[in-house]
Formats: sequence, C-alpha cells, structure tokens
Amino acid sequence: MITNTINIAITAGGTSEPIDGVRKITNLSTGSLGWHCLESVLEYFKLQNSVQFQVYYILTENAVHYPLTKEEENSVQFIKVFDAESVYQAVDNLTKTVNIDFFIHAMAVSDFTFSYAMPTHSLATQIFNFIQEEKNISVDKIEKLLNYPTEKHAKEQKISSKNNLIMGLKKTKKVISLIKKNNKNTFLVGFKLLNSATEKELMEAAQKLTATNNCNMVLANDATAMSANNHKGLLIQNGRIIARPTSKKEIASAIIENMLSDNEY
Amino acid sequence: MITNTINIAITAGGTSEPIDGVRKITNLSTGSLGWHCLESVLEYFKLQNSVQFQVYYILTENAVHYPLTKEEENSVQFIKVFDAESVYQAVDNLTKTVNIDFFIHAMAVSDFTFSYAMPTHSLATQIFNFIQEEKNISVDKIEKLLNYPTEKHAKEQKISSKNNLIMGLKKTKKVISLIKKNNKNTFLVGFKLLNSATEKELMEAAQKLTATNNCNMVLANDATAMSANNHKGLLIQNGRIIARPTSKKEIASAIIENMLSDNEY
Repeated sequence: MITNTINIAITAGGTSEPIDGVRKITNLSTGSLGWHCLESVLEYFKLQNSVQFQVYYILTENAVHYPLTKEEENSVQFIKVFDAESVYQAVDNLTKTVNIDFFIHAMAVSDFTFSYAMPTHSLATQIFNFIQEEKNISVDKIEKLLNYPTEKHAKEQKISSKNNLIMGLKKTKKVISLIKKNNKNTFLVGFKLLNSATEKELMEAAQKLTATNNCNMVLANDATAMSANNHKGLLIQNGRIIARPTSKKEIASAIIENMLSDNEY
Repeated sequence: MITNTINIAITAGGTSEPIDGVRKITNLSTGSLGWHCLESVLEYFKLQNSVQFQVYYILTENAVHYPLTKEEENSVQFIKVFDAESVYQAVDNLTKTVNIDFFIHAMAVSDFTFSYAMPTHSLATQIFNFIQEEKNISVDKIEKLLNYPTEKHAKEQKISSKNNLIMGLKKTKKVISLIKKNNKNTFLVGFKLLNSATEKELMEAAQKLTATNNCNMVLANDATAMSANNHKGLLIQNGRIIARPTSKKEIASAIIENMLSDNEY
C-alpha cells in the first residue's frame, strides 16, 4: 500500500514575452491540452480513493481555466506565470522544494525573449560606423554588434512607427532541462510540436527531445494536424509509438493512463 | 427630420501579426473600449427611435464580444479581421462602398508586421560577406541588406531555438489615413495611446494625430494610467479638452454624446 502523497506537476498555456508596454510576442497555445491532463489526473485518482495526491498546475495568464469542485480544489495548487523567465523560476523553485513524481510539461515556453528593437536605419548606421573604425572585422564582431547594439530602445518606451524595425531576440533558459537535473526520479512527459512534419520527422524529434532532456515519454504532434476539435498526436515511449490519440482529450487520457498505470498507481 | 440611415463604423481589439505557424506579435488591447462605444451608440439611438442607423463593427479575433438582443443585432454588422493588412482591406472596402457618417477607430492596429527572422550568426555572416565584396559601402546599402537579407526564414517554418535571433519588421499601411481619403465627410474619432506621458505630451500627440489624419475628435490616453477598472483619458476637439473620462464606459459615453449631439442626431 502506498502511503506517501503523489506529487504531479503540469504546465499549461503559452508564455508571452513583452516587447514594450503594449506589444508582446505570444504563442497560439490555449492551455487546453494541459487542462485535459489535469482533468484526466483528477478522474484517475477519483477511482483510487486510497491514494493521496497533489497537483501543481503552472499556467500562463491566457491559459484556459475552468471551475473545479471544492474537493478537487484541495488537490490542486495553481501557480501563475507569464514569460519564459517566470516559468523557469517557478519550475526551479517547485522541483527543488517538492518531490515531484510526475511532471507533464505541456506548456509552450517561448524559446526567445525580447532583447532590443531599433529602427533599421539606426542599426545600419551603427554597422557602418563600426566598419569605418574597426580594422579587423570578423563575423563574430558583427554578431556581437547585432546582439548588443549600443543605442537600444528601452523596454518601457513605446516603439515609434515611422521606420522599419530590427528586433533582437535572445534565447531563453530551457525549462525542461531543469526537471531531471533537480530530481532525477521525476517521471517526465515532454511535448514536441512541429509544423508540416512526417511521422518519421516527429519520431526523430521526439527521440532527440528524450535524449537531450531525459524524458520518459514524449507526445509529438504537428501544428498543421490540429483544429478546434481534432488534434492528432503520437505518444512515444522507449522509441516506440504506444498510442495514436486523435483529440486533446484522448491525448490527455493516453498520457495519464500510461504514465500512472505503468508506475503502478 | 432626418430620413437617411446614419452609418457608424467602429473598430475594436488589437491585431495579431503572425511570425510563424505558432508564434505571433500581439497587442494588449482587449477591444472593450470599442465594445463600450458600440453599447453607447445602441443606447443613444434607443432614445431616438425615429432615427435609422447601422453600425459596422470591425473586430479582431481576440476582441471581446457579448450577446446582443435580436433587435440590436439587426443594427450591427460584424466584420472579422486578424492582422493589420486585413484591417486595411476591410476599412478600405467599407469606406468605399458605404457612406460612413461616423468612424470610431478604437482598434490597436500593429504598426509593424513580420518580414523575416534568422539566426543572428547568419545575418552577421551575410553582412561580413557583403563588406568583403562591396567596394562602396554606405548606410543605405547596409540598411537594404537588413531589410532584405538573402536567406530568410520562411513564414510557415517553425523557427529553430538554437541561436539568438534577428527579426526584421516592416511598416504596415496606415489604416486611419484611409478614412478621410475615401470620404472627406466622415466624422473621424482617433485614439492615441502613449506610455508614461504628461498631459502636455498627450495633447501634442493628439494634435499631431488630428493634423496628420484630419481627425474630428481624439481620445488621448496613457497605458500606465490604465487598469481593469480605471482608464483615464482626455477627449480633445479643436485643440481643447472637452471631457476627462476616468473609465472605459465614461470614455465611450463622452465620445458618443459629443459626436452625435454636436452633429444633431
């Protein structure tokens, strides 16, 4: 008999990276896949009422969010995040302080965040001046200038609309790599979204994600095979396709069933 | 007695500019100011039941949208748009085919749309190669390269997350300038949103918008003076502040009252 509480983390939604006070870079993700996973978890444990469990639900501002029953509410702790950096901090903190047994990382975390924006003409002028002054020009030096131009647009200022614009974006810290690093015993479910990919490409991308981040299970899907009601995916474990769900609800059920029953909960 | 139908156009919400299949640049605008304007118009004409009117409500996908009564529905035609270009086309078409008496342009139309994205290193390499080959380097030539690099990332492809990124954004066509161009008799209400601006700066920006686009009335507001319930604005006509509304509902009422009663409807 299991007496300890089972801790499950789910991330859901898409992050928003602010550009200035009024604009941001967002992701099409609605968070409904994550929400279906939460529902499947709640349903699963309803049938095993001797098992104690706690869900940590990390969601972005724009992620869908429906009412829960009073009883369900006691089993779910909501953690709100907004940009990639805030997700990183929340996941780092959670995985360091709670012994997470299962982590379903369904959130679309932005790979890039805003670094700077400036009129194209200003950047061209800076490059021109640099070429005039610098004797040993190299690709690396130009790249450094493109990453850190001297006159940048401040984040709070609204960007002028007079000229074409160059925007510099910098990589964000990878949230998924934190999970196993902080707790190697966590069962990790990763997601891979591609565009117009073949089944072979989806499999390869899933294998790569598994290898890089030590995932125990990966759901690979294609943005072009998605609509409001349809959402085809491949659930992959140990290099094999273990399920071919065709809707968000089916994806969630397949993940939860395989994840929890394999681990004998 | 007025016998002709009064035609009112309202734009609401914020446009989304797609970056790739899953990412986009969006605006914080919710469209609720535009919706309040629609409600104020419907309320205004309910009290003048001899007057025939038709509202053309141009809204973005993410703009708020509440149910109307059957009677109200007959007076409102909804036109859905998504990016800046689609707004331009919709407004151009509407103002050329319908004699719009009043145009309330409350939508936040993106000043920029996605042109290209590429790894910073690739752009640096292109600039380096250009410098090696080109004898007469000028700011204009570099600017041209920044606007039109030769290897671009295709819009449909998902952007790789391995390196820092440079994004080129190009100016969109100004929607507001279309309105008076297509019909000089339209009464045009413009909006100006600034960030951390003084009243003097708001007045100056409003004057500039009036002069450039021939606005009859401008609502100038500051993003930092906004919250869910509060929204301070200055309603400006002929260089004078004619109202100081402090909520979206008050802003809408002030615009509709001043606009319609001044024009004797």
